[in-house]
Amino acid sequence: MEKINVKKADGKLGVLVVGVGGAVASTFVVGTLAVRKGLAKPIGSITQLANIRLGKKEENRFPKIKDVVPLADLNDIVFGGWDIFEDNVYEAAKHAEVLEQKDLDGVKDELVAIKPMKAAFLQEYVKRLHGTWVKEAGTKWDMMEQIREDIRNFKAKNNCSRLVVIWAASTEVYIPMSEVHMDLAKFEKAMKENSPEIAPSMLYSYAAISEGVPFINGAPALTVDMPAIWELSKQKNVPICGKDFKTGQTMMKTVLSPMLKTRMLGLSGWFSTNILGNRDGEVLDDPDSFKTKEVSKLSVIDTILEKDLYPELYSNIYHKVRINYYPPRKDNKEGWDNIDIYGWMGYPMQLKVDFLCRDSILAAPLCLDLVLLTDLAQRCGFSGIQKWLSFYFKSPMHTLETQPEHDLFVQYRMLKDKLRNIIGEESVEYID
Amino acid sequence: MEKINVKKADGKLGVLVVGVGGAVASTFVVGTLAVRKGLAKPIGSITQLANIRLGKKEENRFPKIKDVVPLADLNDIVFGGWDIFEDNVYEAAKHAEVLEQKDLDGVKDELVAIKPMKAAFLQEYVKRLHGTWVKEAGTKWDMMEQIREDIRNFKAKNNCSRLVVIWAASTEVYIPMSEVHMDLAKFEKAMKENSPEIAPSMLYSYAAISEGVPFINGAPALTVDMPAIWELSKQKNVPICGKDFKTGQTMMKTVLSPMLKTRMLGLSGWFSTNILGNRDGEVLDDPDSFKTKEVSKLSVIDTILEKDLYPELYSNIYHKVRINYYPPRKDNKEGWDNIDIYGWMGYPMQLKVDFLCRDSILAAPLCLDLVLLTDLAQRCGFSGIQKWLSFYFKSPMHTLETQPEHDLFVQYRMLKDKLRNIIGEESVEYID
Amino acid sequence: MEKINVKKADGKLGVLVVGVGGAVASTFVVGTLAVRKGLAKPIGSITQLANIRLGKKEENRFPKIKDVVPLADLNDIVFGGWDIFEDNVYEAAKHAEVLEQKDLDGVKDELVAIKPMKAAFLQEYVKRLHGTWVKEAGTKWDMMEQIREDIRNFKAKNNCSRLVVIWAASTEVYIPMSEVHMDLAKFEKAMKENSPEIAPSMLYSYAAISEGVPFINGAPALTVDMPAIWELSKQKNVPICGKDFKTGQTMMKTVLSPMLKTRMLGLSGWFSTNILGNRDGEVLDDPDSFKTKEVSKLSVIDTILEKDLYPELYSNIYHKVRINYYPPRKDNKEGWDNIDIYGWMGYPMQLKVDFLCRDSILAAPLCLDLVLLTDLAQRCGFSGIQKWLSFYFKSPMHTLETQPEHDLFVQYRMLKDKLRNIIGEESVEYID
Amino acid sequence: MEKINVKKADGKLGVLVVGVGGAVASTFVVGTLAVRKGLAKPIGSITQLANIRLGKKEENRFPKIKDVVPLADLNDIVFGGWDIFEDNVYEAAKHAEVLEQKDLDGVKDELVAIKPMKAAFLQEYVKRLHGTWVKEAGTKWDMMEQIREDIRNFKAKNNCSRLVVIWAASTEVYIPMSEVHMDLAKFEKAMKENSPEIAPSMLYSYAAISEGVPFINGAPALTVDMPAIWELSKQKNVPICGKDFKTGQTMMKTVLSPMLKTRMLGLSGWFSTNILGNRDGEVLDDPDSFKTKEVSKLSVIDTILEKDLYPELYSNIYHKVRINYYPPRKDNKEGWDNIDIYGWMGYPMQLKVDFLCRDSILAAPLCLDLVLLTDLAQRCGFSGIQKWLSFYFKSPMHTLETQPEHDLFVQYRMLKDKLRNIIGEESVEYID
Repeated sequence: MEKINVKKADGKLGVLVVGVGGAVASTFVVGTLAVRKGLAKPIGSITQLANIRLGKKEENRFPKIKDVVPLADLNDIVFGGWDIFEDNVYEAAKHAEVLEQKDLDGVKDELVAIKPMKAAFLQEYVKRLHGTWVKEAGTKWDMMEQIREDIRNFKAKNNCSRLVVIWAASTEVYIPMSEVHMDLAKFEKAMKENSPEIAPSMLYSYAAISEGVPFINGAPALTVDMPAIWELSKQKNVPICGKDFKTGQTMMKTVLSPMLKTRMLGLSGWFSTNILGNRDGEVLDDPDSFKTKEVSKLSVIDTILEKDLYPELYSNIYHKVRINYYPPRKDNKEGWDNIDIYGWMGYPMQLKVDFLCRDSILAAPLCLDLVLLTDLAQRCGFSGIQKWLSFYFKSPMHTLETQPEHDLFVQYRMLKDKLRNIIGEESVEYID
Repeated sequence: MEKINVKKADGKLGVLVVGVGGAVASTFVVGTLAVRKGLAKPIGSITQLANIRLGKKEENRFPKIKDVVPLADLNDIVFGGWDIFEDNVYEAAKHAEVLEQKDLDGVKDELVAIKPMKAAFLQEYVKRLHGTWVKEAGTKWDMMEQIREDIRNFKAKNNCSRLVVIWAASTEVYIPMSEVHMDLAKFEKAMKENSPEIAPSMLYSYAAISEGVPFINGAPALTVDMPAIWELSKQKNVPICGKDFKTGQTMMKTVLSPMLKTRMLGLSGWFSTNILGNRDGEVLDDPDSFKTKEVSKLSVIDTILEKDLYPELYSNIYHKVRINYYPPRKDNKEGWDNIDIYGWMGYPMQLKVDFLCRDSILAAPLCLDLVLLTDLAQRCGFSGIQKWLSFYFKSPMHTLETQPEHDLFVQYRMLKDKLRNIIGEESVEYID
Repeated sequence: MEKINVKKADGKLGVLVVGVGGAVASTFVVGTLAVRKGLAKPIGSITQLANIRLGKKEENRFPKIKDVVPLADLNDIVFGGWDIFEDNVYEAAKHAEVLEQKDLDGVKDELVAIKPMKAAFLQEYVKRLHGTWVKEAGTKWDMMEQIREDIRNFKAKNNCSRLVVIWAASTEVYIPMSEVHMDLAKFEKAMKENSPEIAPSMLYSYAAISEGVPFINGAPALTVDMPAIWELSKQKNVPICGKDFKTGQTMMKTVLSPMLKTRMLGLSGWFSTNILGNRDGEVLDDPDSFKTKEVSKLSVIDTILEKDLYPELYSNIYHKVRINYYPPRKDNKEGWDNIDIYGWMGYPMQLKVDFLCRDSILAAPLCLDLVLLTDLAQRCGFSGIQKWLSFYFKSPMHTLETQPEHDLFVQYRMLKDKLRNIIGEESVEYID
Repeated sequence: MEKINVKKADGKLGVLVVGVGGAVASTFVVGTLAVRKGLAKPIGSITQLANIRLGKKEENRFPKIKDVVPLADLNDIVFGGWDIFEDNVYEAAKHAEVLEQKDLDGVKDELVAIKPMKAAFLQEYVKRLHGTWVKEAGTKWDMMEQIREDIRNFKAKNNCSRLVVIWAASTEVYIPMSEVHMDLAKFEKAMKENSPEIAPSMLYSYAAISEGVPFINGAPALTVDMPAIWELSKQKNVPICGKDFKTGQTMMKTVLSPMLKTRMLGLSGWFSTNILGNRDGEVLDDPDSFKTKEVSKLSVIDTILEKDLYPELYSNIYHKVRINYYPPRKDNKEGWDNIDIYGWMGYPMQLKVDFLCRDSILAAPLCLDLVLLTDLAQRCGFSGIQKWLSFYFKSPMHTLETQPEHDLFVQYRMLKDKLRNIIGEESVEYID
């Protein structure tokens, strides 16, 4: 194994969040600020809390990740971003109704100071939202250039040594991969010609990568998941990752499916329904946005269960996913799954899971980890798709020739092995 | 790695089931007979259905386990056993109401032919059952000698080359480990003196091992899980394993706990309740039998979550397990779990799992696998505790110096690595 | 109160079922035949099992309804009907997979003898079904005339003294009430002109009533719920009732909503989702058919909760109903409800109901009761909408000037008071 | 119907709460104070929110109850009470963790001013609690005399014209009804002799009634439910009512059981489990206290379903109730019910209800209603058991010769009819 030369994490790390006033983003920002002031615990964050085994089991070396991996210090983070509403992050977080007032109070001044830049937003890509703080531009290319300028200005103004851009904004309408996404030249031409196949999220990703800034996609749209952007990221030597944060129901799926397979239990149907009442729920109430999400959510089970290998168990699965906008619940998403399985001699059984979760509470620590790990990847000189970050995504990016890895525990092993590799340690032979 | 010399699986394999007329045992026997006649599928059985990766991932060698591991052929199995009721297995299976009539019809003749031997049973160890087909003996030692004789007779009469004994009978009252269980000489003396610390299940295990026959413990009692028996099994060069089949709720726990830990989500409480109406439920309605089960079920979460390493996440867990006898449901056990977790900044969330399972349907394939794998272990020359079979047990046996392994996926890896080892293949570096 | 002169139930009662080969209808037919042979119990049937209080409470008169109300005898029923598939009812019941084989065996001969007449079916009104046993006709009017002929033929051939027609077929696409449904002359003209606003179910209702035969509508379509048909039923002196059998989830709603109101607990949201895999589920997978059902299901809560009277409790309810076709479950429908309520000082609470029901098992006894009670109504000389049968319907018919009654217990009281009235007894002052 | 002469509600109404620092009591007090300041809504209170139909339906007279029934004004209430801890109600409410800080802040001064009197408490009757603010007395009789003195002092000091005592304290250990409870003289003797059959709650009830003060029993112990106290209450012309507030799971039972019966659906089993983590849960973790609760909870279903009348439906019900102390949930009780029912031809179905409720939020409005209605009863000259208040209780008091009424809707009708009667209006003929 080749030794990796990791650049030191010197200076400020600018974190630019697309949709910085949204529920997920504001929860991420509030929590990170509170954690570094000692007011809250970064529950859910691997980089901040988890230990990692090093060496042989008998060596009993099991330090905290953050003590051995050269991650950026939370104190070096500077937050910024774009939003379609002008509210500062304090106002936005209050409006999101995710966190209690007392949790905002402790970092109020810092939050008030984070004012979003105008968003690159086009109504037809997120039909249910009506932005009031948006860029004007003649062409999509011009709009992209404005984003690049925003990035450069932010870096200079805040004296950052490095930046990361993370998409935590709403799900755009479904755009299937087509010609213009397959080739960088065509993609650039399409931006200039205002092609409908260029969604605003693509302008952000193109802009960030062009500026040499890593890009994380927390939503299910194409954004960075296309050959044109892969090519650009290789050219610019920039790591990218995505897509769609793996939080509640899909996280459960990537754990329960391996359980069924491990135990050779058959599966005849999986019905998943969700109710949520935040802005994300409202956006997904539009069938075109839902389509994007549905595609992201559906592949998980099939990939894990390998019906070709186990036709008697998994060749006839009826899998359905529904998302329902349901305002009474606000950010407190509820996912209800009914799973029809069968065992010995074909006898049917049922497994039902009701997950009363909180969308933003589950997503926020993923944002923190991904920001820190993508910055690390950049300093390691990695570029293109970061498959080792699959752990964090519903629909992990992969090249056209390979399969995604969905099993949560396999993903976790990949993540830890890469971290060991980065710090010059051997892989270990078991899960730990 | 040392090459293992595996004896061939020549001749008949006698499978002696303690409690052969019970729900689990009769479902195991019916299914196995049906499978070998091509009337049913052995869903849930790793040995019959699962594939195993061999070599490097790129070699793409992924055969069925049963095609590469020298397991006994199902056609070579001869069933027998003991029960406290005189019914043959056909009558017993009808009475258990687990399987539909049509599934019994196909193997009726074979089932009718399996008549239980009289059980070694003592009322005070299973208070809710009233056996009518039981051995008479002056001392526990004498009773044990009768079991040995049964074993020898069965072997001779059925012309078996090898035997396995598996406990699939009811849970006995709680007997904590004490002096008499720590030392073989004391244990033998205690049998002769009718010590109350010697439960009938211990007579079976002592008898089997003395006859050189491997013993599998599907219930939570001590039985083979004590230094006295470990010593005997080493002396006699016999493999043993247990204890308590891991079927429904605990299987879920050994999957969901690793999920929480992997994601660094906190846990404040786990409430598990079960309703079941079969004989097992009736037995566990007695507080003394339940105590045995409770001890078996409770340790799982703590062991997996490592509170010493992660005090901010797992040092204050309220874990409660309840089992309720509820006749309307018969064998169709239902387990309801409420899990109180917390995420980012400490915000609480809830996960609820309702598992409408079937006790015997989940346990039967474990019986089949364990019988085949323990017989394999015997032919490999393994003796004592078979830790690599932890995958199948709620409360995996381990020496006094070591910790049990509870995580289902780690257990699975241990199982497969041992199988690779047996057939002279290398470990692989990832879960598969 | 006027004395009602009830004609005796002499002779045969022909029961013609539209969709006689469907799951609900075949379950109704099988069960009724089994009950009259003493092979099964008519669980769920008020007419067969319930008692009724007569006189003052202290009189302690509490006979079975069937002992005091002059209902038709089950032995006098002759079954027939129409279906879009040619299978006899034995084959149809097997295919429906609702009942076990042993329950069909007992009445096999009778079932085989019930062969459906060709259905009046038009693809565009039930898009997911493809009938193969259907009438050909030049106009809708002509098709209606064929139905009338079927009715006359059946009556003559089976020597029936009376008939009842009951719709137990699939839900047609949504047709809002319009001009042609408001006036009998226009309605007749529309049939002749093949107006798209005339669905096949309307041809059945018009035909039956024209022949002097009562009509029961078990589905949510207009069918008999329009002024044109009301007028006809008054002219012909025929009772009609509907619509949409109240079985699982809606039955729960009409019980839980009164509970909330009685206790003055607030309601902020009610999310209902259903999974079912029978033909009904398949039909409702078509958005146009679902629309018809949705309209039927949505009004229940609002009507019961009277938001005008209790604006602080019920003026802001988010109510959503979803039905999902999910084949693994067949007829075993599952309804999951999440209900967000609030109490003292506005504190939120949640109520979740998971109903693992069986669509046809719940509907079949309603069919039996409705057939007997509608025949009774006819013999009492009642005509038009039978509001006292609201108890059985999701969306009880009512005149344009009045409100429907949805509360299950109020409906039950109405039903019993009418029965008392029919047999010349006083109303009682309490629920019984 | 006789005209009732209702005394006017002049002057102050003292409300003395036993266990005034507990979760239920403090929530009741905080809410009542907040409501009268216009800071909160009395959701859940019939007296404050519900309307009542008067006259014929067509008269359309449907006023608020509080506008036509001469109830005490909330502004005239003065709160006091006893507790085993010295905390004032503000501190107690904070400690109970039921209400948010902002809801306490609005009435902080009033709460701080309510300081409990020392409780009549004996450890052996509530084993899990360890009171520190308790009366000392030579005999139970002397302790009772101290309570009488407390009552007189409170009345004088606060210048009250009337008082009501309400028990909202913990459940005492199970004491079956025996000799000493059957006769007033024996009961008095037993107090003097410190008989173990005299629990502290009986001292409160005897004291209150002796002072001419109505007594409400919100817990399941005997307290006022015995002939000795009935006799006293008749002698003293004082109304009494109880027992055990009907809040979550039992309220559901008294609604779902009537639904099953109304629809003639069979019931084979009902399994109810509860988790709660407040002081009530802790007390009920003691088997002796649980026994008291269990007896109160179990009778509901049988009484409603009348198995003698419907043996084919209800003669073989397995009913089990479990309460589990589960600290992570605090006051947020969760009740999970599994209900096994059967329909047409005996086919089984399942209904599951998960009620994430809040114990004190559901109980508080019952306290308010009961206080106001019992005071009303007193002013009407009613004495002894107030059966018309059955609506509020799990285990409604009734004479030894009569049956309790459990059906929530029948109870509601009884309540409203009594109110109509009090104000000189006729009963109405339907539920409203």
